[in-house]
Amino acid sequence: MAKAHTQSCPVAASLNEVGDGWTLMIVREALNGTSRFKHFRTNTGIAKNMLADRLARMVLSGILEKREIQDLGAQHEYLLTKKGKALAPLIVAMTQWGNTWVYGEGKEPNKLVNRKSGDAIVTLMPHDKEGHAVEWKDVMMELGPGADAAMRARFARPNHNTSENTD
Amino acid sequence: MAKAHTQSCPVAASLNEVGDGWTLMIVREALNGTSRFKHFRTNTGIAKNMLADRLARMVLSGILEKREIQDLGAQHEYLLTKKGKALAPLIVAMTQWGNTWVYGEGKEPNKLVNRKSGDAIVTLMPHDKEGHAVEWKDVMMELGPGADAAMRARFARPNHNTSENTD
Repeated sequence: MAKAHTQSCPVAASLNEVGDGWTLMIVREALNGTSRFKHFRTNTGIAKNMLADRLARMVLSGILEKREIQDLGAQHEYLLTKKGKALAPLIVAMTQWGNTWVYGEGKEPNKLVNRKSGDAIVTLMPHDKEGHAVEWKDVMMELGPGADAAMRARFARPNHNTSENTD
Repeated sequence: MAKAHTQSCPVAASLNEVGDGWTLMIVREALNGTSRFKHFRTNTGIAKNMLADRLARMVLSGILEKREIQDLGAQHEYLLTKKGKALAPLIVAMTQWGNTWVYGEGKEPNKLVNRKSGDAIVTLMPHDKEGHAVEWKDVMMELGPGADAAMRARFARPNHNTSENTD
């Protein structure tokens, strides 16, 4: 794994926990019901030692819970915790981006639908607490209560957050 | 960078393009208006050679466009393309997850708000094409038109997509 980011920033913090090339593949599997070491292995193509390392890290960081399977003696299963299940938006965002921008329309390997209605899930959109959709260009970062000195200095600079690159 | 995933899957494809520890930090910056090499450097803490490598890859994969700054001679800026701007949901998903599950309420380094109203952006929720919110446990993967033999075999197995781990 790469050196951890030291910035006090939620994107950096998330990358420190799930930002290597395999952790989100394991989360993809777990969200689809995979819970056993051997199934994670065959479904992702990850090497045994890498998988053991990633599962251990994910248990440590509270993304997965390791449980004995009662009727299988020393065998274990790995289940997503609440923190792990909360990665669903990340997986959906990657699924939609990969389908749209890497594969393209008509070439999607898989698609996301509403289990109940069969309707397609549309590209994620931000919403405010009233339930109104917000345009991406109107999503702005502001200082949070846990901002450190570096983050405060950054926000004090002019044009720190112009989002002029955003549609 | 780690070896590329060979699976035909939009999550794997996305990880191949943005799944190292730095690319999404650069996207975070670009979404906030950063466009110059030196500013990417100081704002992320990335090493010069790593940054040069990542920017070149991101131009190659069509996430960034490299442009000469006319009045600055040989200097360049890097701007997000449409494909790059479409990574906004991923950055927002990581920001929200990091704030909620790594920092916790009251300790967020920064927060996302609606630039126009100042209202908080709530945690991303999936929606169907009618605009109705869909619960995460009802988001299901189904075969897409570009599924390869491995993906088809996987969907043919029982319980390939039980989502029993999802709330």
